[in-house]
Amino acid sequence: MTKPLILSVPEPRSLDLIFSTAARRDLHARYDVLEIETDEIEDLADDTLGRIHYIIGQPALSQETLTRMKALRCIFNVESNLINNMPYDHLFERGIHVVTTGAVFAEPVAELGVAMALCLARDVVAADQAFKDGTETWGGESNNNAQLLSRSDIGIIGFGDLGRALTRLLIGFRANISVYDPWLPPSLLVEAGVSPASLDNVLRENDTIFVVASVTEENRGFLNASAFAKMRKGSRFILLSRSDVVNFEDLTDAVQSGHILAASDVFPEEPMPTDHPVRNMKGFLRSAHRAGALDTAFKNMGQMVMEDLDLLDRGLPPIRSKRAERETVARMRSKPVNKN
Amino acid sequence: MTKPLILSVPEPRSLDLIFSTAARRDLHARYDVLEIETDEIEDLADDTLGRIHYIIGQPALSQETLTRMKALRCIFNVESNLINNMPYDHLFERGIHVVTTGAVFAEPVAELGVAMALCLARDVVAADQAFKDGTETWGGESNNNAQLLSRSDIGIIGFGDLGRALTRLLIGFRANISVYDPWLPPSLLVEAGVSPASLDNVLRENDTIFVVASVTEENRGFLNASAFAKMRKGSRFILLSRSDVVNFEDLTDAVQSGHILAASDVFPEEPMPTDHPVRNMKGFLRSAHRAGALDTAFKNMGQMVMEDLDLLDRGLPPIRSKRAERETVARMRSKPVNKN
Amino acid sequence: MTKPLILSVPEPRSLDLIFSTAARRDLHARYDVLEIETDEIEDLADDTLGRIHYIIGQPALSQETLTRMKALRCIFNVESNLINNMPYDHLFERGIHVVTTGAVFAEPVAELGVAMALCLARDVVAADQAFKDGTETWGGESNNNAQLLSRSDIGIIGFGDLGRALTRLLIGFRANISVYDPWLPPSLLVEAGVSPASLDNVLRENDTIFVVASVTEENRGFLNASAFAKMRKGSRFILLSRSDVVNFEDLTDAVQSGHILAASDVFPEEPMPTDHPVRNMKGFLRSAHRAGALDTAFKNMGQMVMEDLDLLDRGLPPIRSKRAERETVARMRSKPVNKN
Amino acid sequence: MTKPLILSVPEPRSLDLIFSTAARRDLHARYDVLEIETDEIEDLADDTLGRIHYIIGQPALSQETLTRMKALRCIFNVESNLINNMPYDHLFERGIHVVTTGAVFAEPVAELGVAMALCLARDVVAADQAFKDGTETWGGESNNNAQLLSRSDIGIIGFGDLGRALTRLLIGFRANISVYDPWLPPSLLVEAGVSPASLDNVLRENDTIFVVASVTEENRGFLNASAFAKMRKGSRFILLSRSDVVNFEDLTDAVQSGHILAASDVFPEEPMPTDHPVRNMKGFLRSAHRAGALDTAFKNMGQMVMEDLDLLDRGLPPIRSKRAERETVARMRSKPVNKN
Repeated sequence: MTKPLILSVPEPRSLDLIFSTAARRDLHARYDVLEIETDEIEDLADDTLGRIHYIIGQPALSQETLTRMKALRCIFNVESNLINNMPYDHLFERGIHVVTTGAVFAEPVAELGVAMALCLARDVVAADQAFKDGTETWGGESNNNAQLLSRSDIGIIGFGDLGRALTRLLIGFRANISVYDPWLPPSLLVEAGVSPASLDNVLRENDTIFVVASVTEENRGFLNASAFAKMRKGSRFILLSRSDVVNFEDLTDAVQSGHILAASDVFPEEPMPTDHPVRNMKGFLRSAHRAGALDTAFKNMGQMVMEDLDLLDRGLPPIRSKRAERETVARMRSKPVNKN
Repeated sequence: MTKPLILSVPEPRSLDLIFSTAARRDLHARYDVLEIETDEIEDLADDTLGRIHYIIGQPALSQETLTRMKALRCIFNVESNLINNMPYDHLFERGIHVVTTGAVFAEPVAELGVAMALCLARDVVAADQAFKDGTETWGGESNNNAQLLSRSDIGIIGFGDLGRALTRLLIGFRANISVYDPWLPPSLLVEAGVSPASLDNVLRENDTIFVVASVTEENRGFLNASAFAKMRKGSRFILLSRSDVVNFEDLTDAVQSGHILAASDVFPEEPMPTDHPVRNMKGFLRSAHRAGALDTAFKNMGQMVMEDLDLLDRGLPPIRSKRAERETVARMRSKPVNKN
Repeated sequence: MTKPLILSVPEPRSLDLIFSTAARRDLHARYDVLEIETDEIEDLADDTLGRIHYIIGQPALSQETLTRMKALRCIFNVESNLINNMPYDHLFERGIHVVTTGAVFAEPVAELGVAMALCLARDVVAADQAFKDGTETWGGESNNNAQLLSRSDIGIIGFGDLGRALTRLLIGFRANISVYDPWLPPSLLVEAGVSPASLDNVLRENDTIFVVASVTEENRGFLNASAFAKMRKGSRFILLSRSDVVNFEDLTDAVQSGHILAASDVFPEEPMPTDHPVRNMKGFLRSAHRAGALDTAFKNMGQMVMEDLDLLDRGLPPIRSKRAERETVARMRSKPVNKN
Repeated sequence: MTKPLILSVPEPRSLDLIFSTAARRDLHARYDVLEIETDEIEDLADDTLGRIHYIIGQPALSQETLTRMKALRCIFNVESNLINNMPYDHLFERGIHVVTTGAVFAEPVAELGVAMALCLARDVVAADQAFKDGTETWGGESNNNAQLLSRSDIGIIGFGDLGRALTRLLIGFRANISVYDPWLPPSLLVEAGVSPASLDNVLRENDTIFVVASVTEENRGFLNASAFAKMRKGSRFILLSRSDVVNFEDLTDAVQSGHILAASDVFPEEPMPTDHPVRNMKGFLRSAHRAGALDTAFKNMGQMVMEDLDLLDRGLPPIRSKRAERETVARMRSKPVNKN
């Protein structure tokens, strides 16, 4: 009996990155896996194309090629930023699922986010540096600007997997969490234990603000000088999703002026120019796009794919990965990553 | 009508440190407050001593002087480390409560502890420094030793207010928490949602170990080379209570050798000598005894005192502060603090 | 400016049942609402049909009629049991959402489920009746078969909205919850805080079993004599979803024999024949399909519809209601309700 | 080597009731256990009395006899209602702990309390009876007065172990819980996740009120006609602690009049007279003092005693049982139980 065929083009990920040895063995036991370059796909024989049930990766695909993939059921986009390189309408019409696996990054990114929030609230990094330098201040004198996260006001902008992961990690802190997400109905936020709020209120009424919103065509640069000016003096701004939602120069100005503190895992250029002022800025905690890329996260991707393959094999819809939506797929504008 | 008399000798704290303006006003409205130096107490007239209902502070007191304080009901030790400078047996016989207010530090210390755990698990401080230096590594390559706190194995040594605060903050991380505390029955730990364990198991089977035990006569230096050797390679040791429970040289050796990572808020000498190797040690995160001393914590002390005074005034036992116990008061050996 | 047109055929619900006065006012302010009988729809003018954006209800619709509804975006099935009375494939191809609002019943049904579990575990109903009759037993003697829910073993069969609501309500009971749901991947159950298990294990290893599974073509009557025989002696079986998943005669036999206790909100005939033995059976707690039908649940339906209309109006997908899936819509076999 | 001597007079409990076979074996392995009648104690030889370290039970004891018990460290009152039958001041002066084990009942009583609350909110008992009688109403028509516990307003009067257990069980219901307890400071209630409130507010502003307060000299009958009149029309009153805190006739009047619903586990006479109107009263759910007396609760008592004995043997204070307090021991006025 033939096994279902999987077309594998997962770059920049590799199957070895996303599957543990055991999972990879399991994958090959259950499926035929055709590893190939994107530009070779259209040259495959109709017979081969017609046997493809699943694609792992995000290759550019024409409607013509897709039409020849008569058995196609699901495309697992393991890069997870949806590029406009295939006719999504055609896929949706045929009921072919396009799913992303980016949810695996939610937990590691959220943990780094909490680390950043605590570091800024307690000046952890500078205090360690001072200790190294022999200039440390002992006891309460160094805590004049210190603040607890417990019972503080926390804002979250964007409430996808990452916003939810943050909320979960923060449960024990019993904070007052308000959320701005125009794509979600208020009652769903209430059910998740947070308060729905306008962007303006989230900016004005919090001690810590986490930005975990996706970039879309509409929201590029919406966090700008005017937004930062609304924030409480001395409050913390933590950027975890994509730098394009922020006007980065306005952000560094707001930190430079002493109005707010900030931390970021993402930057408008990666790497940033060596002479960029953010590199030496006081009150800015830097992370070189390393929040999500843990090996455990990549291996969770593989598990996610295996679990959804199992459902699909049994004629059920995938549920572990996140489905692209007809309405929003065209709006997403995150840049694809070029490294893991 | 006369108000109850409070004897106030709170050094090194001051009433202004522990009471907000409003709370201080309330204190004076409800009580006569006699502020005095310790060595002046015994010279007070019998009549005055006989009117003292409460003491705020931890002055040295002879049994003779205490006997003259016929109305004494409670001593609020706001320094919170019990020194052997008064006849506790005499106090307990008379049913005079001796209470400490150190529980206010549990939450701020626990928050710094979580910050430290996340910083060590994700190399936050060195990654920021590298970014400053222009030597940062982008993406997953810098995460080879990174680990999530979520679902990890976490050990806690000592389970007083601070251990409980840590456990609460960590709820959202869904970690597997095991606790060693020989003063507590196992079922009470189970009820608190943690697993009772031997010291040996806590040392051997965790990714992160928080030390929040008090110093007693029996446990001085019990965390030594042998203990550190039992820890998992690459695991994290976080010292939050008192440095005397640790053999500090053994600790720095264990970090220096690369066996474990560590963070500490307390040190055998404060300040540490300027040439002490811990100041420049890789894998060691330093905090100059600043974990608990937040203004909000001190003000909570004042609230704690006011709430217990209210209960005592109504003939009820104090419940917000922590009572010293006949059995253990003599065993506690924390050094008193000389700064806040 | 014209408002979007809604076709309203919500029987057996009515707009007054599902919308509060305020919500109904809001509905009419934002939409033109055409209330009509199902058999009148096809006779509507093309122009009218072409203006319909949304349908509230589940009218039988031919592909021809649907084709004339060129602006149709979403069908809100407020009855919530999907009948095979419209060409779903056609709808899915066009990207028209078919959503159900049955999630509003999850919480009230779950609450009754917890009530039933506690009543069976503590013999609440018979003890009250005995007290009425003057035959009550005082104190512990009546508790020989009593069991706590706290820390007990609880099984859940089916893990949709209702299974999740149950799990949430039970958090405080710290029970050991295992779940059988073949439509869900194990990791998702783990993330929800429950243990994935086989049907066999759920049956064999629990003190209380909640059945909240939907009826499909495959699972009709799968809980039968063989299943009940696997259950622990004296354990409790609580049926909350649909009676068709159970062989009802086998269930009553298992209760009659004293092997298990049971409670049910659903019955193979509603009303059951007046002489049916379940009416007088000891160890069986009866509820006449009244678990979900609370006014607050119906009003939540209206809120759900309004929130999803708001998203749809802004070009976003509905998220509050639950979407029918191409893969499973044909498998669902719940009977539609004929009363609220 | 001699083992410590325990004097055992646990009536109305027996050692077999409170110790499992294994725990009882452990008890005898670690201790000499002298089982004796109360009136034989004073006749024991000085040598024997002088060897008694612990007492399990609540025998009447004169100061003279106690003085002869020179090694006495702790009295485990397993009946748990403190009777005024020994000189407590003398015990407290000597630092002899008097502890009660009633906390074991908190969880079973709280579970029955939640069962009662859900039964009243959903009319579970009468609906089952109607089904038996063939007069049941199907579907939503029977739910006109139904209410969810989720997100409802819940009041708790008294916040000891039982109030805390209730609060824990209710976590998943996300209710708005307000508490009246004059013996506790407000901040402690806030920390426990509930809102401190006046008695008046608790009565006026809740849908369900749980009474779990102890009886004291001051509060006998404080829940009377005036209190019930303040309650919301149709709200539920659930009495779980002691009937003496309630004016029972006023309570039945309030139920009879249709103003409130009620449930009770305790009654002014136990058993109640066979012709007492509460036996047939609609809107009253009856339980014949059976809420706490589960075998698992009694066995937890034994575990509690064993764990505290272990601490005491090591020179530590007991922590699992609850200590009687000098200030309040004289105020408690629960009647001792005469059956388990």
